Amino acid sequence: MQLTETRLIERHRPTLDQALEAIRSRAYWSPHPEHPKAYGESAPAEGLAAFEALRGTRFDLDQPGTDGWTGQEVSPYGPELGIEYPHADPDVLLPAMRAGLAAWREAGPERRALVCLEILSRISARTHEFAHAVMHTSGQAFMMAFQAGGPHAQDRGLEAVAYAFAEQTRVPSTADWSKPQGKRPPLELRKSFTTAGRGIALMIGCNTFPTWNGYPGLFASLATGNAVLVKPHPRAVLPLALTVRVAREVLAEAGFAPDLVALAVERPGEGIAKTLAVRPEIRIIDYTGSTAFGDWLETNARQAQVYTEKAGVNTVVVDSTDDYQGMLSNLAFSLSLYSGQMCTTPQNLLIPRDGIATDAGHKSYDDVVGDLAASVGGLLGDDARANALLGALVNPEVKSRLDGAAGLGEVALPTRKITNPDFPDAVVRTPVIVKLDGAKPEAESVYLSECFGPVSFAVAVDSTAAAVELLRRTIRDQGVMTVGAYTTSPETERAVEDVCLEESAQLSLNLTGGVYVNQTAAFSDFHGSGGNPAANAALCDAAFVANRFRVVEVRRQA
Amino acid sequence: MQLTETRLIERHRPTLDQALEAIRSRAYWSPHPEHPKAYGESAPAEGLAAFEALRGTRFDLDQPGTDGWTGQEVSPYGPELGIEYPHADPDVLLPAMRAGLAAWREAGPERRALVCLEILSRISARTHEFAHAVMHTSGQAFMMAFQAGGPHAQDRGLEAVAYAFAEQTRVPSTADWSKPQGKRPPLELRKSFTTAGRGIALMIGCNTFPTWNGYPGLFASLATGNAVLVKPHPRAVLPLALTVRVAREVLAEAGFAPDLVALAVERPGEGIAKTLAVRPEIRIIDYTGSTAFGDWLETNARQAQVYTEKAGVNTVVVDSTDDYQGMLSNLAFSLSLYSGQMCTTPQNLLIPRDGIATDAGHKSYDDVVGDLAASVGGLLGDDARANALLGALVNPEVKSRLDGAAGLGEVALPTRKITNPDFPDAVVRTPVIVKLDGAKPEAESVYLSECFGPVSFAVAVDSTAAAVELLRRTIRDQGVMTVGAYTTSPETERAVEDVCLEESAQLSLNLTGGVYVNQTAAFSDFHGSGGNPAANAALCDAAFVANRFRVVEVRRQA
Repeated sequence: MQLTETRLIERHRPTLDQALEAIRSRAYWSPHPEHPKAYGESAPAEGLAAFEALRGTRFDLDQPGTDGWTGQEVSPYGPELGIEYPHADPDVLLPAMRAGLAAWREAGPERRALVCLEILSRISARTHEFAHAVMHTSGQAFMMAFQAGGPHAQDRGLEAVAYAFAEQTRVPSTADWSKPQGKRPPLELRKSFTTAGRGIALMIGCNTFPTWNGYPGLFASLATGNAVLVKPHPRAVLPLALTVRVAREVLAEAGFAPDLVALAVERPGEGIAKTLAVRPEIRIIDYTGSTAFGDWLETNARQAQVYTEKAGVNTVVVDSTDDYQGMLSNLAFSLSLYSGQMCTTPQNLLIPRDGIATDAGHKSYDDVVGDLAASVGGLLGDDARANALLGALVNPEVKSRLDGAAGLGEVALPTRKITNPDFPDAVVRTPVIVKLDGAKPEAESVYLSECFGPVSFAVAVDSTAAAVELLRRTIRDQGVMTVGAYTTSPETERAVEDVCLEESAQLSLNLTGGVYVNQTAAFSDFHGSGGNPAANAALCDAAFVANRFRVVEVRRQA
Repeated sequence: MQLTETRLIERHRPTLDQALEAIRSRAYWSPHPEHPKAYGESAPAEGLAAFEALRGTRFDLDQPGTDGWTGQEVSPYGPELGIEYPHADPDVLLPAMRAGLAAWREAGPERRALVCLEILSRISARTHEFAHAVMHTSGQAFMMAFQAGGPHAQDRGLEAVAYAFAEQTRVPSTADWSKPQGKRPPLELRKSFTTAGRGIALMIGCNTFPTWNGYPGLFASLATGNAVLVKPHPRAVLPLALTVRVAREVLAEAGFAPDLVALAVERPGEGIAKTLAVRPEIRIIDYTGSTAFGDWLETNARQAQVYTEKAGVNTVVVDSTDDYQGMLSNLAFSLSLYSGQMCTTPQNLLIPRDGIATDAGHKSYDDVVGDLAASVGGLLGDDARANALLGALVNPEVKSRLDGAAGLGEVALPTRKITNPDFPDAVVRTPVIVKLDGAKPEAESVYLSECFGPVSFAVAVDSTAAAVELLRRTIRDQGVMTVGAYTTSPETERAVEDVCLEESAQLSLNLTGGVYVNQTAAFSDFHGSGGNPAANAALCDAAFVANRFRVVEVRRQA
């Protein structure tokens, strides 16, 4: 079955048009259902069976330059996955990837976008299988792995394709240029404009959200005419290996070189990201992970466009509220979801030491912290619900940070060990809240560093004005992915907004219902701002795609 | 007279709309007339008088932090300008510039664009004055200084404003987001999106095209909500000082802080570009000049977005032609215009050593080089015409490269000294053409380095295929701003096109009439590709503007 241009247009052009409209209006839209039942009655069992069938096998991709096999994934829920992936010789693989570039460029922006949409729709059809793959690599609970690793990730990929298409088609493919010369005949030129990718893009995946954080860069680069080498985190290979397999199948069926998308998995301790990142063939890099390696890439991979999402110190300013219970519930959920292992989870809650005004009367700093601790405790009091919300700790580093949290200050909410009846080896812990005095220099060094995982700091500040200034300093010096604020004061609201505008941070105000500061919706919300140290790019805007390709003009006398 | 929003819309919105349409169609368009007579009968005399009135004066801009006066401009035509400019203390000036940012951000993309258009239209009205300022700093002949320094530079500025407006308005200012929740009420958010500049932009001007190369960055940054500090080349201050003065006047009249645009002129040997470029307040840098300093900026100014245009080795492949005389005339003009001191002037002419097929029969390598030399000689045989085309050598470094050219190989066309009757001290020289054997390693080190100025190399190559491969190597390793090719063979045409697509270079094919490889038209042609070592950005595309601002989202429960 050949994926002809006509077939691709019939299947996917309407979706592309809807995506283009969605990024213009930024209203709610998604073609990827969130509910597991929407995928058909047999999908859950088939998805699980497909995942189980992969375990203990060799995951062959038929890639050029495969010089061995490697894989060490162990599920945060306990089981070893036992899957071996191809290990690549870049001196063979990279030239093979380049070989497909000319035809991919000639396909043009629309055909490339439609091929990307076919890849995404095949991934979507296998969302249950991907959910298990994401769950057993990231430690997310099943429902979150399903939604964030499935439809939400696919949305972010599609969003990147829409932006890429929109940017590439702003320049016409040809133009007739006629410049009047008074009484003499006009100067006339025939011009053609071709969008050309930069070469090979390297997408370096992360442990916690392999698909959600990986798809924007992968699809933005592919849709703009580049080949993409996918280098997953060694603990989270499977979701991206499945992605690469689907992409290679679709590319081949559509008549393109499957090697336009390839996988590079490292042997233990090999550190291939560092060697690949400075290869001259690599012209684009997308990276999500530590600040240290993100900074290294920005400094050293000078031959490439580098898009990084690094660490931040997410902050919530608590000034006042007209829905005290709503605020507590909302914050409790934000701190608990995926054990606080999201790059968007609030870390610092800035609370005036004299307390705050609420619809339930004045609440002292201790009241607020105690009530929040109780709210988290209540939310996670039932072990089944706790397991469904928390998932498992993704790696031992998170656990050791959690274990060390009690030594950082007064513990307002201790962590609690939870047993997962299905996976007794899973490390499941409720979040800890530590009280810190914002005015003390020794506390500052604690709360102004990222403490990734289920640890939050209730920072007592002298006043709301002090909180706003600390927010500014945090954004400017440490970076943030998210800022939250609770206030009933228009002046405070304005002050927090001004700081976010001046220092470039995305702000959620007075969230008390079912939307949380740590969640962003594709096509509408920006993830990160690209304007503070936490990330040099936002998902997804024009700047994220516009420099992944160049426009080459050829002009001829008419 | 207050520049109200209504007045700005009436005056400039139609022009902005036309510019937006022009960058979409890329057909010919310009609102800035090229002919000096179009500016009114009294304009030439008034422009000259205005320029003369500036000489020997102190150019006060009423800028904060002025701690002295400096200026050493000497016209390449001889006279000292004798103008003193404010010297700035950045510790005072930069905070003052930042103070205007909030109101400038709040003005929004349309108002900012219209203010920029008012600045450009006032500059346009003074084009004759600017022409003299450009002529007596760059050494361009008057007509070229008038056109390239006036309407063409204004076009490039307007083009940048149009791109900036288009990019900023792709995101709506507000959105209502409603996500269905089955039988439960939908999740509803009210979102606002604000385009926010990054801070202060530094525009580092060049000696040869202070306005043409300076306006794109200046106006792109200003239109996207940034303040702009203009650091002119010490030999070419006046055109940008006039620009800054106009911008400050317009900003004040429109109710904004004039300090949003300011001038920084250095004392002899002070090197302020280096210190300014790494100040934390500087978030964007635009630079045109040497590869060495461009590379230094890219490596060291890590706190800023850096847009550079550096050196390249522009190349023309000469394979065959059906208009031999047209080809020779076209190339002769390209080599002569402004004494080859354009970043787009061809340097290397790659000619098969066995000669080429033409409509005038087979021409040997020696024929082609000799005929081209004769064509240049003919074009510049009349001293008046030569002066009008060549202008003056911009600085002693160009002259010493020209003087050294004879030692590089066999001279096919020697340089000739020309007297300018109006300016006897002007250094006016015709271009030199040197023959080199492309196969000789010692020649390669000569022709694969940039030799800026009126020196071209006729490089004998083994075949057209060898020329195409040398072209590829030149683009990849040295970078090019322009590529030209002459061929009647569809295969050769395709091969050259493929190299330009793969290595990212702008190509002009078979130009034999009144369009030259070294000229690009705003709104239609891209200047540079941003994809090879000669420049990391193209003038002007979406990537040139999209990262000068960030979109800050504020979301609230609805």
